[in-house]
This record gives sequence, C-alpha cells and structure tokens, in this order.
Amino acid sequence: KIISYHEAGHALVAYYAKHADPVHKITIIPRGRALGLTAQLPEDEKFNYSKSYLLAKLDVLMGGRCAEKLIFKDTSTGAGNDIAVATDIARKMVTEWGMCDKIGPLTFGKKSEEVFLGREISHSRDYSDQVSTTIDENITLFVKNAEKRADDILLKHSDNLHDIAKALLEFESISGSDMEKIIKGEKIVKLDPLEDSKPGSRRSS
Amino acid sequence: KIISYHEAGHALVAYYAKHADPVHKITIIPRGRALGLTAQLPEDEKFNYSKSYLLAKLDVLMGGRCAEKLIFKDTSTGAGNDIAVATDIARKMVTEWGMCDKIGPLTFGKKSEEVFLGREISHSRDYSDQVSTTIDENITLFVKNAEKRADDILLKHSDNLHDIAKALLEFESISGSDMEKIIKGEKIVKLDPLEDSKPGSRRSS
Amino acid sequence: KIISYHEAGHALVAYYAKHADPVHKITIIPRGRALGLTAQLPEDEKFNYSKSYLLAKLDVLMGGRCAEKLIFKDTSTGAGNDIAVATDIARKMVTEWGMCDKIGPLTFGKKSEEVFLGREISHSRDYSDQVSTTIDENITLFVKNAEKRADDILLKHSDNLHDIAKALLEFESISGSDMEKIIKGEKIVKLDPLEDSKPGSRRSS
Amino acid sequence: KIISYHEAGHALVAYYAKHADPVHKITIIPRGRALGLTAQLPEDEKFNYSKSYLLAKLDVLMGGRCAEKLIFKDTSTGAGNDIAVATDIARKMVTEWGMCDKIGPLTFGKKSEEVFLGREISHSRDYSDQVSTTIDENITLFVKNAEKRADDILLKHSDNLHDIAKALLEFESISGSDMEKIIKGEKIVKLDPLEDSKPGSRRSS
Amino acid sequence: KIISYHEAGHALVAYYAKHADPVHKITIIPRGRALGLTAQLPEDEKFNYSKSYLLAKLDVLMGGRCAEKLIFKDTSTGAGNDIAVATDIARKMVTEWGMCDKIGPLTFGKKSEEVFLGREISHSRDYSDQVSTTIDENITLFVKNAEKRADDILLKHSDNLHDIAKALLEFESISGSDMEKIIKGEKIVKLDPLEDSKPGSRRSS
Amino acid sequence: KIISYHEAGHALVAYYAKHADPVHKITIIPRGRALGLTAQLPEDEKFNYSKSYLLAKLDVLMGGRCAEKLIFKDTSTGAGNDIAVATDIARKMVTEWGMCDKIGPLTFGKKSEEVFLGREISHSRDYSDQVSTTIDENITLFVKNAEKRADDILLKHSDNLHDIAKALLEFESISGSDMEKIIKGEKIVKLDPLEDSKPGSRRSS
Repeated sequence: KIISYHEAGHALVAYYAKHADPVHKITIIPRGRALGLTAQLPEDEKFNYSKSYLLAKLDVLMGGRCAEKLIFKDTSTGAGNDIAVATDIARKMVTEWGMCDKIGPLTFGKKSEEVFLGREISHSRDYSDQVSTTIDENITLFVKNAEKRADDILLKHSDNLHDIAKALLEFESISGSDMEKIIKGEKIVKLDPLEDSKPGSRRSS
Repeated sequence: KIISYHEAGHALVAYYAKHADPVHKITIIPRGRALGLTAQLPEDEKFNYSKSYLLAKLDVLMGGRCAEKLIFKDTSTGAGNDIAVATDIARKMVTEWGMCDKIGPLTFGKKSEEVFLGREISHSRDYSDQVSTTIDENITLFVKNAEKRADDILLKHSDNLHDIAKALLEFESISGSDMEKIIKGEKIVKLDPLEDSKPGSRRSS
Repeated sequence: KIISYHEAGHALVAYYAKHADPVHKITIIPRGRALGLTAQLPEDEKFNYSKSYLLAKLDVLMGGRCAEKLIFKDTSTGAGNDIAVATDIARKMVTEWGMCDKIGPLTFGKKSEEVFLGREISHSRDYSDQVSTTIDENITLFVKNAEKRADDILLKHSDNLHDIAKALLEFESISGSDMEKIIKGEKIVKLDPLEDSKPGSRRSS
Repeated sequence: KIISYHEAGHALVAYYAKHADPVHKITIIPRGRALGLTAQLPEDEKFNYSKSYLLAKLDVLMGGRCAEKLIFKDTSTGAGNDIAVATDIARKMVTEWGMCDKIGPLTFGKKSEEVFLGREISHSRDYSDQVSTTIDENITLFVKNAEKRADDILLKHSDNLHDIAKALLEFESISGSDMEKIIKGEKIVKLDPLEDSKPGSRRSS
Repeated sequence: KIISYHEAGHALVAYYAKHADPVHKITIIPRGRALGLTAQLPEDEKFNYSKSYLLAKLDVLMGGRCAEKLIFKDTSTGAGNDIAVATDIARKMVTEWGMCDKIGPLTFGKKSEEVFLGREISHSRDYSDQVSTTIDENITLFVKNAEKRADDILLKHSDNLHDIAKALLEFESISGSDMEKIIKGEKIVKLDPLEDSKPGSRRSS
Repeated sequence: KIISYHEAGHALVAYYAKHADPVHKITIIPRGRALGLTAQLPEDEKFNYSKSYLLAKLDVLMGGRCAEKLIFKDTSTGAGNDIAVATDIARKMVTEWGMCDKIGPLTFGKKSEEVFLGREISHSRDYSDQVSTTIDENITLFVKNAEKRADDILLKHSDNLHDIAKALLEFESISGSDMEKIIKGEKIVKLDPLEDSKPGSRRSS
C-alpha cells in the first residue's frame, strides 16, 4: 500500500509538473531491486537538458516521498534512492552545469583531464570550505524547493492520488493514458496493453 | 548479573516501545562474540523500513545500556556494539534516508555510481564542515532522544526489569511469551520450548 | 535551434572581443561528443599567452551560454564543457601564471619536481584555507566578469546573433568571412568552401 | 633510581585506587623494551570492563609519571608508553564505549562493517571538527583528572612511595603482599617467591 | 620581442641586485622547453646559501615578469616557471631554513626520516591551519617584496632595459661583459665569444 | 668561516648549558653530507631522557644558527638540519612525552598498534584543529625559547666564540678539553690526539 502511494506520487507530480516527460506506465510489480516503477516517456530524443527540465525531474523524484508523508505521516527507507539521484542532479546543476546563480558558471571539484592550448589541464580538487558551504546550501535549496513543489501538487490533487493508488492496488500496473482517465474522473473499462520493453522508457522508481 | 540486566533492558524496551518488533527470546548464554542476546521476531517480512520503526529500533538498542546505568550506576564496554549499531542507523536516517528535517531529503557522503541521463553520476565526498556539523548534531539528537525514551520506560517499569533479570539468572533463556507472563505478574510454571534456529529471528545483542 | 544560438554566441563574442583569435568556421554538424563547433584561427603561432588573450578566451567560452540565456531565458547542460575549460583557464591564471593581483606572482597547489640548487624541490600541497578562499574568489571574479562582457556584447549585437543563428540553421556550417558579411548586412550568395582539416584550427565548442 | 620511583608510583596508586586490580608484583629488572614492570592480578576473568574500572586503570597509568614529577621535579621519556596507552583508553571511552556524557552513547571515527537489516553498514570517517574538538577536550579531561587523582594519592602517601622505591632498589622485585607489608610499616624478613610466568598477570609498565 | 625584454629584465636585476651571482650570458635562442635564458655565474662554489643570496635570487626571478609588465602593461604565461621556482625558494626559506622571523627556526610539513637518540624520527604532516596561514602570508611577503624590488630596479634603469633588449634582438645572445658595456653606454664592436657548455653555469630562464 | 662559527656556536652552548652532554670534539672537516661536526660525549649510557636534558639539546641545536646571526647578521641554509631535528624533538616532547603542561600527558597523532585488554588499540589520526593549533604553539615556544637561551649564552661569551672559531680555522679539529683551555684563556701548545671512531660519540652537526 505504501508502494502504491509512493508510485502514484511520482506519477501525479510528473503529470502536473511543467517541462516533465509524460508518464508512460506505473507499476508496483517488483523488478530487480526496485519495489515499483513509474516510467516516463521522453517527448523527443535529448542529449542536452535544460534547467527547467532538470527542475521538473527533481519534482518528480520528490513525489514518491511526499505522497508517503502526506498519507501516512511517515517516511520510509524506500525513498533513499530517489533522494540520492535528486542530490546528484542538484549537485551537478550547481557545480558542473552553471545553473545556480550564486556559484555562477564555474566547475568545482571535477577531476578530469582535457587538453587546451597544447598542455594538459587537470582540475584541482582543492576548493575552499567557503565555496563548499555555498555549494551545499544551493544543492539543499534546489532539493527542498522541489520537495515543496511536489508537496503542493499532491496536496492540491490528493483525490487523484487516492484514485491512482487504489487503481494500482487493483491492477498492479496502469498506463499513462489510463492515469489520465482516472484524473479526469473517467472509468477504466479495459486496461491498456502494456509493453514492458518499449524502447526509450526511462526508469523513475 | 550485569548481562542479565542488560538483556532484560533490551527486551523490556522492545516490549513497551511502539512500532518495535515483538520479543522472541532472551538469553544470557554466550554465543560467538556476544555475551547475551535478545531476539525480536519481525511481524512480517519487510524490505522497507519506516522512520517510526527505526526510532523504536534505536530505543531497544539503548535499552541494555540504560538498564546498566539504572541498576548499577555504571556503564560497561559491553554496550559498545549497541552504540555502534545505533550510531550507524541514526547516521543513515540523517544522511541517506532523508528522515531528519534539518538536513532534508538529501544524500551526503555516499560513494556510489549510478547511471542517469546516459552519464555516470558519482557522489562527491566533499561536503562542507557546516553540513558535517549539522549531520553530527542530528545523529546525536536521534540517539540521545532514544536513550531518554529507554530511560523513561525502564524507570517506569523497573519492577518488571528486576523480575525479568531474575528469571534470566534462573533459567538463562526465556521466551517472549514467558516474558509477557512475568510482566503481567503470572508465574512461569514450565518454560516454553525455544528453537534457536527459527528463521526470521533478528539479533539484538 | 539551441545549438545554433549557442555556436552563434561563441562566434559573435569572438568577433567583437579584442585580443581573441579570428573566427575560422562555425558549424552545428555534430562531431564526436560535440554538438557544434566554432573554430578560431590563431593569428600566428603562439607558445606564450598574454593575460589579455586569455581574458578574451574566457569571453568567447561564455558566449555560447550567454546566447542561450538571452534568447531562451534558460540554460542547458551543453555549456558544461565551456564552463569546465573556462574555470581551468581562470584557475591557472590565478594559481600558476601570477595574473591575479590579489594572489600575486605565486604558485599554489601545483605538484611538480624541479631541480634547483642541486636539490629537489617538491611543491607542497598544503596551503591554508584562507589562500584557498582567495583563490576561489578570484577565479569566480575572472569567469563572472567574462560572462558579463559576453552578455554585453550579445545584448548590443542581438540582431547579428539572430542573423548568424538563422544562417547556421539554413547552411549548417558557415565560414568566418561569411559571418563577417552577415554582420555587415551583406547577403551570402555562395558559401565559402570549407576545409575541415585545415591545420592550425583550434576547437572552441 | 628514576625507574624505582616510577614503578613504585604505579604500584602505590594501584593499591589505593578503588576498582583497580590488586598489585601482583613490582620489578625494576629490564625485560624486553620495558625498564620495569608493575603487574596487577585481575580479581576475576573479565570480558566486560566498567567505567569505574577503566578510570582506575588511567589512575595507575599516571602513577609512574606523577612519582617522577613529585620526587625529581622532572619528567622523562620513559612515561611515553603509559601516556600512549592512557590516551587510547580515554579515546575509546569517549568515542566507542559511550562513557562521556558530553558525547553520549555514539560512535565516532570507527571503521568497520557490520550487517544490519540485510545491508552493509560502513562507518563514515567524516565527522565535523566541532565533534572532534569535543572529543579531544573530553579525552584530555579524563587523562588530566586521572593525573590529578594519582598526584593526590602519591602526595598523601609519599612516605610509602619512598619506602617502596627503596625496597625496589634493594630487592629489584617485590610481591604485592610484600608491598602491603611495607605500606603497613611491617618489615620484610624474607621475600615472597615470585613466579614470572603466572598466567593471568597483566603488564602495566 | 617579449622574450628579449623578459630576459633583459632578469639580467638587469641580476646586475643591480646585491648578493646575486654575476650575469654570464643572456640568450633568446630557444633551448629545450625554455624560450630564452639568462645564465649567472656563481662567484665561488657554494653548498650553503645565505638568506641575502636567496633574496637576491628571488629578485632576479621576478625580473623577467616585471620587465613585461613595465614595457607591455601585460603579463604572459611565460613567467609561470619563474613564479613556480620563486614560490618554492620562498616556501623553503619559511618552512625549512628558518629565515622568516614570524615562523622562526622550525620545520613544518617536511617528510623525512632521521635517526636521533636511537629511534626513528618521522616528521608529522599535521600542522594547524593557523600555522598554514602564517606560512602562506610570509611566502607571499617574500615574493611580493622581491617583485617590488625588481620593479624599482627596472623603473630606475629602464634605459638600460631598452638597450639590452635591443641588443638581444640584434645579436640573439650577449655576454655578461657586453651587457656591462651596454649599461655603461659603451658600444659593442665585436661580440665576446660565448661558450655554451661552460661548467658551473647556472640556468635562470 | 661561516662553518667555524656555526660549529663553535654549537660547542659553546653545549659547554654552558646545564644538563647538556659534554663536548667531545669539534671539527670543520666535511664528512658525508655534513660540513662540520660538534660531537658530545654522553656522561653515561642513557635510555631514558629527562625534560631538562632535552631542553639543553634544543639549546645546543640552536647554537650554530645563533652564532651565524650574531657574527654575520645573516642566516644560511646550513642550519636546516639543526632546525629539523629541533622541531622533531620539540614535537615529540609535546605530543608523545607529555612534557608540555598545556597539552598534558596525552599522545596525539601517533600511529601504532598495541595490545591492551586482549584487543587491538590503534591510534586515531583525527584530532581537532584546536588541538593542532595548541601543539604548534607549544612546539614553537620550546624552540624559540631555546633560540633565546642560545642567543644569551653566545652574546655573553662572544669572546670565547671568536677564540674557538679562530682555533677551528687554524687546526680544523679541536678536542673538548682544548676548547675548555681556550675558554679559560690558556694557550693550546699541542693538540689532543683525536679518535674519530670513539664509540658512544653522538653527532650534532
């Protein structure tokens, strides 16, 4: 039951968050290490991710944990992986992709070797504790803001959350279009056939 | 005698703490490195642990040391392992499972490699001393609060503590149901048969 | 479309920044890991780079990201490499080439071994956090000032930016002389023949 | 002569400190690296050490150095090993055995791997400098208080100290019961036979 | 032309700085990695360097960069090696040779093993950030003062600087005695024969 | 000449400092890496060093450098080894031998493994920056005070210093008893025969 609400949380935030990939499928059938899955289908092939897209990604990652908090007033270790991935994305936004105004377009802490001007450039690992503090503050800000946005979406659409979670408990897996019907209050007569190995599906456990 | 009270302390806190697994068996027969054992039987198979469950786990771990303190006004090195496990759980709650509001749903200090967006994400080990201080403060808070809750339970039920410790000194091993009889003031006529290798039993030394 | 504006941004800043190498060719045909390329042709063979030259280099590196910001009010992960190279150059200017007055003509954090006075000189890695803070502040200053100069150039010449980006979308690759015609409002009748393997061309993705 | 007073200091503190193991033998015959030895016989086999016992252990370790200070107004490098062992015990009391109220029942800085909840728990080495400062302060407090207690015992019983040291210079080795006779002002007519390889003897150089 | 002034700067400071080795030869013919060279001939074989000699060495090392700054109002990457060597000497003066009054006659950060008193002495790497800050401040002071002295010499004798640089552009290599003639306003009729492989010559690029 | 005064400085301080080993021989004949040598003969075989002895050792080590300062108003790299050894002794006095009241009888930063209580004790390297600062301050204090005491002795006996240095320049090596004659104003008629390989001689370069 916790897993149903967790996955429904991911899916619902993905539905309402602007710039997020559309939901392809939700399932609570355990696969590998994951206890459930919400798959989003990217609208087109991307090699380049915009800041808006990444912020929406953070919102969706927070969705599962926020649903647990909202419904059960408790959190579980199951959100550990979502938290790790969200922290990673936020860290890269701040320290590699120049997406935090406070730090600016600078790279900190990356170890790589590139050739420029005929010499080798190796990134120094040594940056001051002051920069380290600013980095941590802004990573925290990105993730906590995403949590807040996810909280707001789920609170506003808690009816949808209950409906999707119930449908998941009943059918175990539902498609993105079925989810849309649920949200619009339509009855699901017959489930959409689901293809597990559809190419381009992206995992968001 | 110290060991009897230590194990009785674990068991009694496990009995009274909400959300804790029920006590399966208590023993003061040394096994391997451990001088005694309180085994709790989980109510159902779990892969996902809630914050409430983990807090109860901390309470039970503190129980042994608190019993020593209460009865002998002294602590011993025997609680070293309980302390280590409790610190680990509290650390993971704060830095991996997002269960501390001050830090929020962020991961700090984990080294792992996962694939996201077609690239490798490697966690940076470098976080500021400010975050490190906040982490330490909140780990300390989790464990000290657990110690306080365990102190309260044992102080309130010190009669039970003496009764269980005495029974342990007499019988060496008692079952969870026998412990319940002792607590309820019933006499143990005949000991429950104990199965050592019962599957699913969890060690709490 | 994002890539067109990104490359046009690099090229336009290279055109207007004093001390920068002249633009040789711009392309949005993906090559290797890079999604586009602006090649500058150095005026003469250089082994020794002046501070003015390196500052112009930083301006050009910021050009791509600034164009994205100006046109789409968003930034993307595609600027990650520009940011990394710019940070490297700025770091070397501050810590190796003595080009920052605050730090002065001193080397910090370099690990090398040289022979002086018949003994081995090995650089110590240990410098204080105070020096580390000063280094980080001045690296940030170099890069943020370059960003500001690039912003100014692109804002002032945004018409040129649109024209070059449009030409790139149409022709995929244009030469430096064609770019100059576009800037001067001349029509490109026939594209300059482009030689990919021209020696001496330098990559600026 | 310094060694006689050093060993007499250990032995005398061991005699007067509550909770300490009784003195088994004192010798100033060099053995291996040690220049002298005070052996204490544990009252019973112990696997579990109480805080009181460990505090007495610290007192005894300080005894040798305090005797040197009291008699010669000088200290020597010979106390280096006592200092190292005392610091180790104090560190473990603070960081592993939860015996310092300021730090509480938490483990800091231990590297080990244990299995809990079906996953691996690895202790993080990263704790803040604030915790590190608190740890150092409390280790220092434990050792300096032990030094003070040893100073007090030796000052109060300096007559005994001179008598034991003289006996050591005369006989080279004396037994615990002979020491007791000296303290009580009885004359030693005939030395106790000493068994060097007595099992269970514990070194306290 | 930059290289001529750079080498002329080294040579001129070496000529006017007290305690510096006399100039043996100046050249702008590239050799190995170096683009030019000013060779100083030590007055006598030395194994022991005084503080005054090392301060003059720092002045000479700064000379090249200061000439660039004075003439072209720009600095170049070519001074990177001078800066590295100067920082190394200054660091050793402060941390190994006791030549900084603030730090005093103490060694910090050296890793070596020597035998004293029959035991091994290994230098600890751990010194406080406070000492590290003091070290960095005094290294900076040594180098910045050297830069100032070199600036003063070159500003005062800028006519000589132009003359030597011009001579270098004309002849590519000139001897120390020819340099002296230039400084004294004498005409060079015939170049001194130069021996490249003269033993005892010391490189100062 | 510098070396003569350097060695004379060591020897003279050794002569006047209380608790120091008597001077056995002084030489300015280079041997191995050392340019000169002052050998002190320990009064008796020692395995245990008192604080007073070690303080005198520091005074003697500073003697050479202080003589250079006093006579030439300059210091040289030749004192580097004296400084390193003095810092090592002072560090051990503070961090291992409990000879600094501020730190007290505690060990910091030593890595060793000893067996206590049937378990392995490994020293932790992590101590706080606060302790590190206190350690550095007290090491500095020990060495700077030794420098001051050496300065005072040499200033007071500068006539002796000149006489010994002159004798060294004349004879290259002189014995401890000859040095005493010089100090007492007696004439050396015939040099003492010197045995280089005398056992028990201790190097003090």
